[in-house]
Order: sequence, then C-alpha cells, then structure tokens
Amino acid sequence: MPRYRLLVEYDGTDFHGWQRQPDTRTVQGEIESALLTTTRTPISVTGSGRTDAGVHARGQVAHFDLGEDVDTSRLGLSLNALTPRDIAIRGIWQTHRDFHARYDAYQRRYCYYISTLPTALDRSFRHIVRQVAEIERMNEAAKFLIAERDYSCFCLTQSETENRVCDIKTARWEKGSNEGEWHFTIAADRFLHGMVRAIVGTLLEIGRSYRSVDDLERTIESKDRRRAGAAAPACGLVLEQVYYRTE
Amino acid sequence: MPRYRLLVEYDGTDFHGWQRQPDTRTVQGEIESALLTTTRTPISVTGSGRTDAGVHARGQVAHFDLGEDVDTSRLGLSLNALTPRDIAIRGIWQTHRDFHARYDAYQRRYCYYISTLPTALDRSFRHIVRQVAEIERMNEAAKFLIAERDYSCFCLTQSETENRVCDIKTARWEKGSNEGEWHFTIAADRFLHGMVRAIVGTLLEIGRSYRSVDDLERTIESKDRRRAGAAAPACGLVLEQVYYRTE
Repeated sequence: MPRYRLLVEYDGTDFHGWQRQPDTRTVQGEIESALLTTTRTPISVTGSGRTDAGVHARGQVAHFDLGEDVDTSRLGLSLNALTPRDIAIRGIWQTHRDFHARYDAYQRRYCYYISTLPTALDRSFRHIVRQVAEIERMNEAAKFLIAERDYSCFCLTQSETENRVCDIKTARWEKGSNEGEWHFTIAADRFLHGMVRAIVGTLLEIGRSYRSVDDLERTIESKDRRRAGAAAPACGLVLEQVYYRTE
Repeated sequence: MPRYRLLVEYDGTDFHGWQRQPDTRTVQGEIESALLTTTRTPISVTGSGRTDAGVHARGQVAHFDLGEDVDTSRLGLSLNALTPRDIAIRGIWQTHRDFHARYDAYQRRYCYYISTLPTALDRSFRHIVRQVAEIERMNEAAKFLIAERDYSCFCLTQSETENRVCDIKTARWEKGSNEGEWHFTIAADRFLHGMVRAIVGTLLEIGRSYRSVDDLERTIESKDRRRAGAAAPACGLVLEQVYYRTE
C-alpha cells in the first residue's frame, strides 16, 4: 500500500487540538473525514505529534496509507476543498513505505508570539502582554534550557514511569517584524505535554522579575510542575516545522 | 481644543470599509461610537483616506479633537476595550492643532499579498492564485508605473473633472517569508479609487502572459478603466503606512 505524507497548516483557535476525539472538532478528525469523503474508505492519519486545543501549526506533518496510487495534486485539491478554511493542506507527496511522521521526526520547532501592542490582523496568533520587561533577562535564562535533561518540571502529565528527557537545541527570544512584537523559538527532539507553554510562562515571569534567572535551574532540578510558571495561553503558540533526516 | 492622532490597525474582512455610513459596520463608525461612549460627546474622526470594503490596514492614521486634555494611555485602553477585536488602536498621541491626517500625508504605502499555496493562518489576508507565473515580467512592468502621471485607467470613479495625477515612488514584487508567498509594495502621494487593486489585477495578467508588458503603457495612455485588468480581490490588500513630514 502506498504511503503519503502531508504538510498541514491550521489555525488552532476553533479546534480541540490535533488528535481525533468523538464529537469534537479536531484537525485529525477533519482531515480523516475529508479523506473518507474523497476516497470512500476510512483512513487513519498519523501526525508527528499532538498539539493542544488552541495551538496553531504552520508545519504539522502527517502520514497515511491508501489502497492504490493516486494523483497527489488532485488529492491535495480535493482535501483543501473538503477541509474547513482553518485547515490548509500545504503539500502532499507519496513517500517511502517505512516513513513514519512521528517516529522519524528528529526535531520539532515551535515559536511563541507575544506583542505589547493590541493587534487586529494577528489577534488570533498573539499573546498580548502589558510589557515585555527584559528580553535580555529572558534570553539569559533561556540559555540554561539548551541541554539534554529531564524536563519533568514543565510536563503537565503525571505518569511517573515515562522518560522525561528532552534534548533542547534552540531556545531564544527575538524581535518580530512589527513594532512591539517578540517571539520565542524553541527546538528539541521531543516535547512533553504542555512543555512549551510552561517554559514561555516561566520565562515571562523571569522577564518581569517575578522570578530570578537562577531560580530556573532549581525549578528544573525539582522536577516539579508546581515550581514552574503558569502556562502561557495557547493562542501564541505555533508548531513551525518538523524535521526528518530523509526529506 | 487639543487634537489627537491615532494609529489604527484593522482586519477589513467584516467591515464595509473605513468611512462611516448609516446602518453598516465601518471602522470610522466603530471608533466614533467608542469615542462617544468614553467621552459622552459626539466626536468626528478624520482618516488619512478611505479604504474600501474588505481592505485591511496595519497603519491607518486618523485625527480628532477633544474638548479638553486627556490621559492618552488611559484613552487608548478605553478605545481598545470598546472597539471590536478586529480594530486595534496601536497608538494615540496629542498632536499639534494644525495636524491633518488627510492633507498632511505626503505618501501612502500599500502591500498586496498573494500565495500560490492555500493558507489557514493568513486566510483572511492573502489572495490565493493558481500560480504566480513570472514575477520578473510583473516587475519589468511595475517599473513603468514609477512616475508622476495621469492614472485614470486604474480609477473606478467616473467624474471627469477630477485631477487623476498620482506620483508613484515604489512599485515592486518581492518574495514573502513563507513558501509560495509574494507581495507587491506600492507607495505614492495619493491613490485613486480602486487603484491598487486594478494595478495588481493588471500586473497579474501580465505575469500570466494574458497581457504584454508593452500593453501597460498603452493602457495608461488610454485613461480608460476598461483597458486595465480586473480588480484583484480586496482581501489581499493592506494599507501599511501613511507618511507625514512632521512626525
């Protein structure tokens, strides 16, 4: 059976996240429903990972199998016509039989967008903050995150047995292209549940001096979610890109 | 009476343009309504120019007068709270008594955004085209627009007496930051009614080879709107910035 790879963009505002759930609007559910309509066969789609309710994606990757070879450009047009406007199929390619959107991904990159000014055009994709305070302090703290270690302190899920080690390769704040805008880029081999929003929330508290830069190290060592900051709102978070060795 | 200057961003999708009209949702109408609520006085707001239904703005400028000095940061917070989410007051300053948002503006800059790929995040701010065809051809043609001359051929309004001379300073297509994206930047001292959308539509026809580069010169000379291309959709157009000598 031929396998296909999808590049998917979505506005997460009105979705209960990526993962299919009964009686709720999810991205996976909408894509599977469009595939069912166009192929008349129930098809399961596997994403690179879940995104939570309200989180956006510019570069989510997924794979699925079909019973036969199809014209991918026609299938792409069908899927874009059949999915709602807050989902866009940016690309569709036939891939090798062993490709796995989740297991083959060696890095994921997220950006978190904040703005100190209200915005109308990007209102669904920005966390509006009173003031950024000190980006330099936030970046000083962010440097300590670039390491392979146990990040349980940023994990929402409570199961104790699971491996919580993540290898963070990038973590930095940068100025955006419009006035008052900043974004935080973070890339790692994997992310724990709620991890990016917990990290951003913690860094924002450091930027506002509610928390010292040194406190971050003690928070990570504690492995205790209650020691980290409040999760930043989902609306600011975008899954930008998923990386595979065999492109 | 002190005069105030506003910097306004809006998502034009659900507005019948900038200018106040009875019984329709307009940007000017919403801002005046918010000013009435907060000051309890009917206040007229003057914009740098009108934008048509569906056209967006990141940098619309307007002015209005108040009976007394007010705390601008408090007034800004009030206006942002009282206007709908598709309007954002990005700045508010007291300005000199003679400042005029329309007459003092010496240049306006618009961008028109197109994409060859469907997009979910920017779906309200992109004109999706099948293919861009030849950006180089479009830029070759765009160069002929950089001149001070009569652009009646791009003007929707029919009144013959009006001065239709515009001094276009910038007109070029550039690649956007995401795959498949391009935008056209155009700056001039003034724009005629429907002018940017007519220019973009004409350039897109040139890019697709429906029309030759030389044809543009003959179209401008004709001063006949029927000779130019079909107007590009409003959704791709953003008023980016209005320029004043005394900032």
